[in-house]
Amino acid sequence: MSAPLGELALIERYFRAIGARRADVACGVGDDAALLVPAAGLQLVAALDTLVDGVHFPHGSPPASVGHRALAVNLSDLAAMGADPAWALLGLTLPSADESWIAAFARGFDVLARDHGVALVGGDMTRGPLTVSVQVMGFVPPGEALLRSGGRAGDVLCVTGTAGDAAAGLALEQGRASASGGDAEFLRARFLYPTPRCASGVRLRGFASACIDISDGLAADAGKLAAASGCGVRLELGELPLSAPLVRVFGGERARALALSGGEDYELLFTVPPARLAALERALPAADGGWRRIGELCESMGVFTVDRGVVTQFSHGGYDHFATG
Amino acid sequence: MSAPLGELALIERYFRAIGARRADVACGVGDDAALLVPAAGLQLVAALDTLVDGVHFPHGSPPASVGHRALAVNLSDLAAMGADPAWALLGLTLPSADESWIAAFARGFDVLARDHGVALVGGDMTRGPLTVSVQVMGFVPPGEALLRSGGRAGDVLCVTGTAGDAAAGLALEQGRASASGGDAEFLRARFLYPTPRCASGVRLRGFASACIDISDGLAADAGKLAAASGCGVRLELGELPLSAPLVRVFGGERARALALSGGEDYELLFTVPPARLAALERALPAADGGWRRIGELCESMGVFTVDRGVVTQFSHGGYDHFATG
Repeated sequence: MSAPLGELALIERYFRAIGARRADVACGVGDDAALLVPAAGLQLVAALDTLVDGVHFPHGSPPASVGHRALAVNLSDLAAMGADPAWALLGLTLPSADESWIAAFARGFDVLARDHGVALVGGDMTRGPLTVSVQVMGFVPPGEALLRSGGRAGDVLCVTGTAGDAAAGLALEQGRASASGGDAEFLRARFLYPTPRCASGVRLRGFASACIDISDGLAADAGKLAAASGCGVRLELGELPLSAPLVRVFGGERARALALSGGEDYELLFTVPPARLAALERALPAADGGWRRIGELCESMGVFTVDRGVVTQFSHGGYDHFATG
Repeated sequence: MSAPLGELALIERYFRAIGARRADVACGVGDDAALLVPAAGLQLVAALDTLVDGVHFPHGSPPASVGHRALAVNLSDLAAMGADPAWALLGLTLPSADESWIAAFARGFDVLARDHGVALVGGDMTRGPLTVSVQVMGFVPPGEALLRSGGRAGDVLCVTGTAGDAAAGLALEQGRASASGGDAEFLRARFLYPTPRCASGVRLRGFASACIDISDGLAADAGKLAAASGCGVRLELGELPLSAPLVRVFGGERARALALSGGEDYELLFTVPPARLAALERALPAADGGWRRIGELCESMGVFTVDRGVVTQFSHGGYDHFATG
């Protein structure tokens, strides 16, 4: 094996020119900071999320997945604001300069960045326990950002894609469940390579009254959106969007539990005033598999599930890094 | 001791409203992402640096210092570009929810952020080995950013403040050297609470042809600036700015070695075309203790020290996280 490269050489070799090329990057990777040209008249949307080895992904995860997910969870935050993504910075902390790991990580990051037109413009590489911080920036027209706080009682609650697959995929990755063939591949991929819903987020501008992405679990995140909007939320259990592989591998009841509490789906959960629903259906057809109604905001504070008309208060919270018990 | 708070409660209690209040923050901590209003007609400058426990600061460092330094090293990158700082995001990874540690960390971050008019607008808190990633954004008029690459042979090399103090302070912190009283306090503070030179960076616009901050050591960073500018650099050893405490504790020879190779000073190293030097002296008087001439860019590639007229090629590099040998 050749001698490991130094920090600057590694950055030069693997991170200098990844992601999309953008005309609004005046100076990218290589100086003390990036020099960027914000789009005139737009608001800047900025997020930073960190993934830690063994906490946010299993130790030994494929490096391409780590690179993909570190960017995806951040792009998902931009999607939840209705922002068009533009730029990213990467803080990569690694125990050693394992070049094949770094190359695969960079490829995973690069492919997703190009898919979303995102340029990597800066960051740093340091030595330490495997930790990845990504910061992303995007744009939204003034007044059109999708906040968590804009919902009102009576607004319809909707979600993109399907829920619970990522938690199922993680259980398979960790050997806590077993499956084989296409179903296992599908569920694993939903955990390892989640798709941030940036295009849907942009299309929801002007229709959605509030929006959040599902990172901690559908029920917990619905509760956060509702609380920020000053109301409660009812989830129709029969309307939860479950993928066929999830139901085949785990059965309907376990699938619903994973969909409610699993987390890591990075789908968009959003509310729409009833009067805007028909217009949204024309702009972003639900039949496309793109999204579906799963409940509504209500006056009573809290999260409630509705199962064939029976309303139950939902008590199991989402993932909290510092929760007791 | 009361039960530890959950992640959201910790963010709410310690990070919701720290740093400066700014009118250009439409939505800060608390939604999926921050919503910001970039200054019209300016370029955006963005940097992200990570500090790792036991790598960038000694294990057991005062939490206020960790909070201060995590922001300071990033503000220093903005200073080196000549940018006015505006916003920061924080990714804080902690092994446990030690509230007194978090409170002191937040205070250290907050005091420096307020000093520089920086608002904390987002980020996240996760569990894992102690690691702090900060991303900062600032602004510079188009065409006025200070790049590393603008120097030319013959330009005068200058530096703000004094060099070597931080490395000396770190040696004291780690028990590799000893000192007492005011000298020890001064040197320790230069490591624990470095001052990013944002005001100097802004004043250098229009005068400096190139600029970099000293993170890896004066000689190594001078070499980076020179290489980016397509030339070499000569450092006059007799002109290195040494603080009185550094010389008293370590003696002149060791002080010069620390100044050349020590790193972590976060002073600005910049070049000025000879024709602009007099104007810079009027705009930013050197006698103020603010900066001094220490050498010049030259045609011969490489880093050279000049000691009473004797020129020597400098060979000891700066700190590299992944260097061999």
